Amino acid sequence: MNGAESLVQTLTDQGVDICFANPGTSEMHFLKALENPRMRSVLCLFEGVCTGAADGYYRMKDTPASTLLHLGPGLANGLANIHNAKRASSGMVNIVGEHSASHLKYDPPLTSDIEGLARPLSHWVRRVESPRAVAWDVAAAVSKASEYPAQIATLILPGDASWQDAGEPVAPPRTVAVAKTPDAARIDHIAKVLRSGEPTLVVLAGRSTRGRALELAGKLKAATGCRLATQFFSARIERGAGRVTLERIPYAVNAAVEYLKGFRHIITVETTEPIAFFSYPDKPSLLKSPGTSVHALAEVGEDGAAGLEMLVDALGATYTPAVLQQRSTSAPPTGALGPASIAQALAAALPEDCVLVDESLTTGRETMGLTVGAARHDLINNMGGSIGYGTPVATGAALACPDRRVFCMVGDGSAMYTIQSLWTQAREGLNITTIIFANNSYAILKAEYAHMGAGAPGERALAMIDIDRPRIDWLAMAKSMGVPAVAVETAEAFHKAMADSVHEAGPCLIEVRL
Amino acid sequence: MNGAESLVQTLTDQGVDICFANPGTSEMHFLKALENPRMRSVLCLFEGVCTGAADGYYRMKDTPASTLLHLGPGLANGLANIHNAKRASSGMVNIVGEHSASHLKYDPPLTSDIEGLARPLSHWVRRVESPRAVAWDVAAAVSKASEYPAQIATLILPGDASWQDAGEPVAPPRTVAVAKTPDAARIDHIAKVLRSGEPTLVVLAGRSTRGRALELAGKLKAATGCRLATQFFSARIERGAGRVTLERIPYAVNAAVEYLKGFRHIITVETTEPIAFFSYPDKPSLLKSPGTSVHALAEVGEDGAAGLEMLVDALGATYTPAVLQQRSTSAPPTGALGPASIAQALAAALPEDCVLVDESLTTGRETMGLTVGAARHDLINNMGGSIGYGTPVATGAALACPDRRVFCMVGDGSAMYTIQSLWTQAREGLNITTIIFANNSYAILKAEYAHMGAGAPGERALAMIDIDRPRIDWLAMAKSMGVPAVAVETAEAFHKAMADSVHEAGPCLIEVRL
Repeated sequence: MNGAESLVQTLTDQGVDICFANPGTSEMHFLKALENPRMRSVLCLFEGVCTGAADGYYRMKDTPASTLLHLGPGLANGLANIHNAKRASSGMVNIVGEHSASHLKYDPPLTSDIEGLARPLSHWVRRVESPRAVAWDVAAAVSKASEYPAQIATLILPGDASWQDAGEPVAPPRTVAVAKTPDAARIDHIAKVLRSGEPTLVVLAGRSTRGRALELAGKLKAATGCRLATQFFSARIERGAGRVTLERIPYAVNAAVEYLKGFRHIITVETTEPIAFFSYPDKPSLLKSPGTSVHALAEVGEDGAAGLEMLVDALGATYTPAVLQQRSTSAPPTGALGPASIAQALAAALPEDCVLVDESLTTGRETMGLTVGAARHDLINNMGGSIGYGTPVATGAALACPDRRVFCMVGDGSAMYTIQSLWTQAREGLNITTIIFANNSYAILKAEYAHMGAGAPGERALAMIDIDRPRIDWLAMAKSMGVPAVAVETAEAFHKAMADSVHEAGPCLIEVRL
Repeated sequence: MNGAESLVQTLTDQGVDICFANPGTSEMHFLKALENPRMRSVLCLFEGVCTGAADGYYRMKDTPASTLLHLGPGLANGLANIHNAKRASSGMVNIVGEHSASHLKYDPPLTSDIEGLARPLSHWVRRVESPRAVAWDVAAAVSKASEYPAQIATLILPGDASWQDAGEPVAPPRTVAVAKTPDAARIDHIAKVLRSGEPTLVVLAGRSTRGRALELAGKLKAATGCRLATQFFSARIERGAGRVTLERIPYAVNAAVEYLKGFRHIITVETTEPIAFFSYPDKPSLLKSPGTSVHALAEVGEDGAAGLEMLVDALGATYTPAVLQQRSTSAPPTGALGPASIAQALAAALPEDCVLVDESLTTGRETMGLTVGAARHDLINNMGGSIGYGTPVATGAALACPDRRVFCMVGDGSAMYTIQSLWTQAREGLNITTIIFANNSYAILKAEYAHMGAGAPGERALAMIDIDRPRIDWLAMAKSMGVPAVAVETAEAFHKAMADSVHEAGPCLIEVRL
């Protein structure tokens, strides 16, 4: 077999059986190797879709996908969503095609410093030096991408390493990552804090916002009266009816400071203490009150569930029942669209076990808190802050969970970044309902302009914030890439469109005209 | 004034009066500073459009534009077209917003190693350390971007340097770049080569494919019988009726080797000897025959026109008239669309002094040679090989030359990379005719698959090359972003659509169904 065949076989042997690809000339042997039926190849029309889809796939499966990118610029196009994935602790294996070693010295036009481009946002970068090394290099990449927290592994594949003979197949062993258990000494200390009765907030992140960890957090709350929250953004939360509901630390600095000031203690689980997303003149970066103490139950990358289990045990709360979220029973809303009616429509329409990808900056920020009583679902946020993450992540999530409907709520400005996702959704027949909140503006920036102390934007500044000239025709945009679409202007129409979308296989788009 | 105001004022003082922007929270003071009426701000919905537009602007004006990008991921989204600009020797000044120094230490979500991301594709990278240094940093950036060959200058602007007091306005001096004159010793040597009568090819690039240099090359040819060519890709060529026509070294390795094998000498002007774009098993990287000698009249960055002037003088050819291209007089074509009829339609429809941006990989490769008899025009190619350069470059070229129609020929696969350009074209009312060659395929890859020795692609490989499921609806795509569009299926309809587009201000799109 040649190097490319060795690569694809090793990927699948190691459990990586999906590849989000946008190939070029130097990857033709890789394409040929993709004839391997164990690998599912998904074509994306822009590399930011590939890397965002790999992120979405990881979020739902906890195992890495691979991407195929064409030399330095192909990698560069995928970097923004690699950044978001890295901040979400999603693992992925990026295969970056490269010129053959013998050709590189002539500095042909597509040459760039691929290692230099990869390193700032990859945890692990390696260049294949020989086709016979490919299998071992791939195994190392998958191993890194599968650690906890997972890593971004980028493997550079020169053309000659791809087409030359790789010898007999080899099967490097698969490694199994084990998260570090938190130090037992911390448990006693934190148990004391919780027994003190002083106001305490437990902030959950990583894998502690789901499954057993979430149940345990509910027991803690029931037993000690502590409150439970997440950062404003979370990689994935299990929420809705029948689950332990987590509060959300506000985004705006003043609101977050106000929210946190009542707590004497903050206990962090797989995260750090709350900080502001951006810096502003005359606003703090650290959001807690000066008198608040921060205690780490589990550092990022440690096993938060194990820490919570020990803590619950230390507090004798193992059999304390958690309070679970009630299903909201309010009827579907009617009338004008606004934060409350949007939330009601969502809460009424979301089907059980759906996945909700949220990149609705302005609209969603005011809405999401009102949807905790929806049927149980998984909620995914943008962890890195680079917009254009939503539609690719929804694409990957839908491929990871073909039996679950994915709802992707996205602002119009964000959607335009990686709108090519719609094409892949149509091509693969993915069960995704894309909800475009069309306010014809980078609306969040109007608020941020004021928060920055810059006052009200003048005409020229506003022209850089409003995207209403021309107004994007979302129905035409969806049609152009083969996705059926509908526009809604009332709460009842929005609810109906969402409910209808559940009954139709494949993607659709709802333009919510605000 | 604050740092942001100092920045915008210094940019305009230094002659940089256009900014392709996609701002975020950390750039709100920059937005406020853009109220300065001397700066034209152009909003782009994706950063790859910003950087590609800056490239196009430079190609036509020979002076740099600026971009405004939002932190590391915003820069990352612009990198592929920065790569293309760098390979075209286009200058640009990238302003990258960044967290305040005081905030950075908390590693907030949007933090990344911006210097690390910038360096592989920038010639010059600097971080503003104080608002009072902004003016000097900007002047240094513009100076670098204005050198010849021009440079990519990237300036990182932390929020606090933007909003803090910059003191009294300062006016750093403007520097004027002067290209180095080629060494006179080379002239004598090359004159001897040309006098020998041995078969010689002069390969022109950089600024030597236009204006006085092009005339001088024509005199050389007339006086010595040498032939004149460009590399397959050129940053900008002045061509068409009344100009000296340059041959084009073929793209395909075998064809290029065949083309070059008759030459005993290759004289290079602002370029290097011809090399293959990609490496292939069993094909050479260097395209010349083993017995061919290469002589550099002007290195990259040297003044090719000065070298040609000295050479023409040495050969006593100053008053030798060059042979100029005749206007082709063939009637507009009718019937089926194919390489020849597409070329005839172009040659008949292109108006005098238009700009032709070519990113039509498969279709254009077979067509362009047949358009040398069109009315005089400027032709722009992709120098870096990263697709998605065409529509942004056309956007920037149209802003640089508001009185000239820009035609952008682009394959469907390439167009999807940075399709957001259409929105900016509609918003700014730019005189751009976008021609989509819709073959529903990364057609070039089918040829490359065979060239690679991979045979005929199987079903799964083909699925990564064809983009016909779903077929992109280009009329809907154009409509979604406010650009009028028409689809054509015959040569006469194509010709008519192009001719019509000249008479209508603002952008339009022609889908050429192949």
